[in-house]
Amino acid sequence: MPYGYNGKILRVDLSSGRIKMEEYPDHFYRQYFGGEGFIGYFQLKELKPGIEPLSHENKLIFAAGPLTGAPAGGCGRHSVGGKSPLTGGYGESDSGGYWGAELKMAGIDAIIIEGRAEKPTYLFIQDGKAELKDARHLWGMKGLECQNAIRDELGDSLIKVAYIGPAGENLVRFANVMHDLDAAAGRTGMGAVMGSKNLKAIAVRGHQRVSIADTAAFKEIARWIAENTPITNKGMHDFGTARVVAALDPAGGLPTRNFQLGSIEGADKITGQAMKDTILTRRRACFACPVQCKREVKVDTPYVVDPQYGGPEYETVAALGSDCGITDLLAIAKGGEMVNAYGLDSISCGATIAFAMECFENGLLSTKDTGGVELRFGNTEAMLQMVEQIALRQGFGDTLAEGVARAAKKIGSAAEEYALHIKGQELPMHEPRLKQGLGVGYAISPTGADHCHNIHDTVYTDVGPMLEALYPLGILEPMAANDLSSAKIRLLKYYSEYIHFLNCAVCCYFVMSLSLVGMERLTQLVRAVTGWDTTFFELLKVGERATNMARVFNLREGFKTKDDTMPKRFFTPHPSGPLKVALDPKAFEEGKAIYYDMMGWPNGIPTPGRLGELGIEWAAAQLPK
Amino acid sequence: MPYGYNGKILRVDLSSGRIKMEEYPDHFYRQYFGGEGFIGYFQLKELKPGIEPLSHENKLIFAAGPLTGAPAGGCGRHSVGGKSPLTGGYGESDSGGYWGAELKMAGIDAIIIEGRAEKPTYLFIQDGKAELKDARHLWGMKGLECQNAIRDELGDSLIKVAYIGPAGENLVRFANVMHDLDAAAGRTGMGAVMGSKNLKAIAVRGHQRVSIADTAAFKEIARWIAENTPITNKGMHDFGTARVVAALDPAGGLPTRNFQLGSIEGADKITGQAMKDTILTRRRACFACPVQCKREVKVDTPYVVDPQYGGPEYETVAALGSDCGITDLLAIAKGGEMVNAYGLDSISCGATIAFAMECFENGLLSTKDTGGVELRFGNTEAMLQMVEQIALRQGFGDTLAEGVARAAKKIGSAAEEYALHIKGQELPMHEPRLKQGLGVGYAISPTGADHCHNIHDTVYTDVGPMLEALYPLGILEPMAANDLSSAKIRLLKYYSEYIHFLNCAVCCYFVMSLSLVGMERLTQLVRAVTGWDTTFFELLKVGERATNMARVFNLREGFKTKDDTMPKRFFTPHPSGPLKVALDPKAFEEGKAIYYDMMGWPNGIPTPGRLGELGIEWAAAQLPK
Repeated sequence: MPYGYNGKILRVDLSSGRIKMEEYPDHFYRQYFGGEGFIGYFQLKELKPGIEPLSHENKLIFAAGPLTGAPAGGCGRHSVGGKSPLTGGYGESDSGGYWGAELKMAGIDAIIIEGRAEKPTYLFIQDGKAELKDARHLWGMKGLECQNAIRDELGDSLIKVAYIGPAGENLVRFANVMHDLDAAAGRTGMGAVMGSKNLKAIAVRGHQRVSIADTAAFKEIARWIAENTPITNKGMHDFGTARVVAALDPAGGLPTRNFQLGSIEGADKITGQAMKDTILTRRRACFACPVQCKREVKVDTPYVVDPQYGGPEYETVAALGSDCGITDLLAIAKGGEMVNAYGLDSISCGATIAFAMECFENGLLSTKDTGGVELRFGNTEAMLQMVEQIALRQGFGDTLAEGVARAAKKIGSAAEEYALHIKGQELPMHEPRLKQGLGVGYAISPTGADHCHNIHDTVYTDVGPMLEALYPLGILEPMAANDLSSAKIRLLKYYSEYIHFLNCAVCCYFVMSLSLVGMERLTQLVRAVTGWDTTFFELLKVGERATNMARVFNLREGFKTKDDTMPKRFFTPHPSGPLKVALDPKAFEEGKAIYYDMMGWPNGIPTPGRLGELGIEWAAAQLPK
Repeated sequence: MPYGYNGKILRVDLSSGRIKMEEYPDHFYRQYFGGEGFIGYFQLKELKPGIEPLSHENKLIFAAGPLTGAPAGGCGRHSVGGKSPLTGGYGESDSGGYWGAELKMAGIDAIIIEGRAEKPTYLFIQDGKAELKDARHLWGMKGLECQNAIRDELGDSLIKVAYIGPAGENLVRFANVMHDLDAAAGRTGMGAVMGSKNLKAIAVRGHQRVSIADTAAFKEIARWIAENTPITNKGMHDFGTARVVAALDPAGGLPTRNFQLGSIEGADKITGQAMKDTILTRRRACFACPVQCKREVKVDTPYVVDPQYGGPEYETVAALGSDCGITDLLAIAKGGEMVNAYGLDSISCGATIAFAMECFENGLLSTKDTGGVELRFGNTEAMLQMVEQIALRQGFGDTLAEGVARAAKKIGSAAEEYALHIKGQELPMHEPRLKQGLGVGYAISPTGADHCHNIHDTVYTDVGPMLEALYPLGILEPMAANDLSSAKIRLLKYYSEYIHFLNCAVCCYFVMSLSLVGMERLTQLVRAVTGWDTTFFELLKVGERATNMARVFNLREGFKTKDDTMPKRFFTPHPSGPLKVALDPKAFEEGKAIYYDMMGWPNGIPTPGRLGELGIEWAAAQLPK
């Protein structure tokens, strides 16, 4: 068994109650690595084609990676995956916090949940042992109650709890899996899959250290990260992820009113700085991380916001805030607490409410439909009401709990214009008219509109200041944010594969950014932990492998290149505001075509040879005939 | 200007006599690197489509790389290229010795020779200055005379001379460019291109050191190479490249009688051991190399073999020896001296003679055709006579000087069966029935049958003992030599790109073998010299870029996938001997198709996106419409 791993994958069949520990050959770890790599492998290998995501035939996989739980900044993450009830395709989302590290310390690398429990159940794992426990008394509980109840009944306040809230129980299609109250595997509706299995929570406790091949080398890199990232990531530390509001609003890149606009009056009230100046009580960190980009906020009036649920990330600030026309930080903080307590993806939740608001303002919905709620942009009470109604599938929330694509179908064809999604998943809070490389990234992401499966910082904005960090990728010239030439698509390809690799490792994008920690130090970190004589080439190939497995899965499930798309709205500039440009349809289509070429995907389909190059010849049999 | 380079490319127009020094932006060096990368770039950018290789419109490019001349083992090489008069496509060959290092020390990275001199000329470069000099008195001279005459007239016995012998002057299509009497840019007929330009020699003298970014790191790696490679490459040191005869003969992999057989009675008389025990006088090294795999031999009778020309490499031993049915080491040594003196590629020369011998034995030729020479297998005198006749284009040698493809056309269609070539270039002395991955490598090499543009040790034989060195390429399972599954093709792809990279760097395959120095140490070496924060990923991409430029050049010049072929002979097993297998036509075709898939070359043609991924978008315009 390689260093960095426990060599144990736990398989739990909720239907039969059977629990077993599985071992895989060493090469399995080197090829698939962990996190998204494991998830892609098991989804493709084990899920029958065409299954209903909320049926017992789906599986829910929790996977750490070799770096998860190794005590260095950025190494506190894990992934959760299964077939997505939101997209009908490859589903996966990763999460920070402490839960993944605890899983590793409990002697397990990954968990495969199968079947469906007859009654609400939770799984308790402690130091390599696992048991299923009755969760009937936990059903209906929000996060904090659930976590406390489990810790109380197991008598250990250090137990880490992954849970679904009422949203997951109610099969809200964008319900998330929460960890440690403030960390979420947010996208693709994994909370609904967990709910469909009657699995309320996975409680974990472990006492063993992650094995490390070269402790001295590891410590040196961990120390480098500890000493440097608080400096390189100072903005993240000081102001959290919401720090970007201050830059995006003047650039026209702050999603506003369901992406009708890119800036909002009063944006200064919802910046990271504003949060720090008003409601911030503390900074929080994921496992071993010196950056502490996570927030803790406290509000007493007009809402009570419990600091135990942390504080809003940028995505939450924009989705429940500006995208809903809201600049009331207290309401956003309350909304943020609620999505964590109920277990909702704040992105899809906010985007769905914003969609409904646009429908309402355009007369496609009325108070008759909404149970009296004036679903207008800027209405903070309406936003908060809808968060709850969605989680509980009450009233009009039951329609919105299906996500914008399905809700639009129900509301009527005129609503489809406002339903901003790709492959059924709502757009994250990054404006593809500003960050055009990201636009193509959204289109080709296996999870639909998603900023966590394709690209990151460098592709978001003008590539210039951080260019030198990209030289080893052969990216030698600066590029504008709205450049979609092959140079940008190349950066998209490499960076996407890098992000997919980080999702396999499983590491934080912020700490492990190519322009901060950099590719060589990351490679050394992997070497130090695993003992493998690896190179950055091998790591990128891990990411490319994961990308291709996800692609094959989607093709098998019926996706076509026409699903690699972008809502119409983004091809027209904002009617006003600082950003004057939109995506150009021709450049966008050409960009996608270049991407397929670069991937070796003629007509969007990986060739058997390409899969062979990645050592996954077996996946070719899964391609549609 | 990056470290490792002089930042100067010398352009010499022989027609006008104009000489200028050119500078390129830093990124040029990082993308194209040197050697084959420069050559591929200039061939594709500067040669007009469809030119006649032996016309003034061709260019001849000599290119060192960043590592050339840095004082570490394996770093004494350079490349010579231009459109090939043998294949009509991408031509390039690289060479060891001291000449390349001297070029770097003279302040120049590469030379582009254009046009054609009115009268025989040579170029003298000294410490950044270049002048053209009359070479009428040198025309007709063999290597040693030519080198001595130049050194004498310039008054410097340390001048390094690249020359053509009479073969190049006579436009023998497989004439080579010789360096330092015992090192050859042997393949693809670059000597004929030089001859067509009336350029007899390039004499070089330099006194400056190659700039190195991190001297301490460089010295450490150079020391590692100095201490370790004499151990890891001990067989090479002791017995030279011909050491492989002893292994290949019993395996049926020693080309014998124009590849009719794979072993020969008396093979023990032509092994590296036999050479050491009989005629070896000294071991020689290329610049800074501790391995000393080169030989020096002396024979007094029945032939006089001048030790100044070195001693026969494996390719020479097999081509002029076993492939001609000859096991007389003295005759082989004489033949080896002659090809170096006359400036002939020993591989193509031997293979062409072997072809003629098979024609003769089958009655397609008679003594009437050959001017009385009994061109039979095993006839040492006939072999030696033909070497001279080819070089001087005398008698039947004039036909053979065209290479097997053109000679067969002249002899008649029945001869084509015996004309073993790919894209017009004769096969090197590696049996594709034994080393089947190499077979596919021959077929897809841009220079036709060539072992220096695709693969090396690991693909030659069973992949097992050295497997761990390949783990970082994702090659995790052992493979048999005759395996052509996608795992083998993947190894072929990666290893080819690695070799192409080494041809850009320009480094020795033996010292820089992945299983010896290894990818990480090589990457560190590049870092130390250039100061670039590079990774193995970037280096492999350099190789992939070079591969694609050469492919585009060939497509532009009219090559099709049907030219990625293999002579029929290799699909039938030897009629007797230890090797029982042949290439399987179906597996071979599938292997090629997988290779195209892996390269992202649908129908064998790089897509614009694929070229874009390599940062050579501009090359797409060169693809045939």
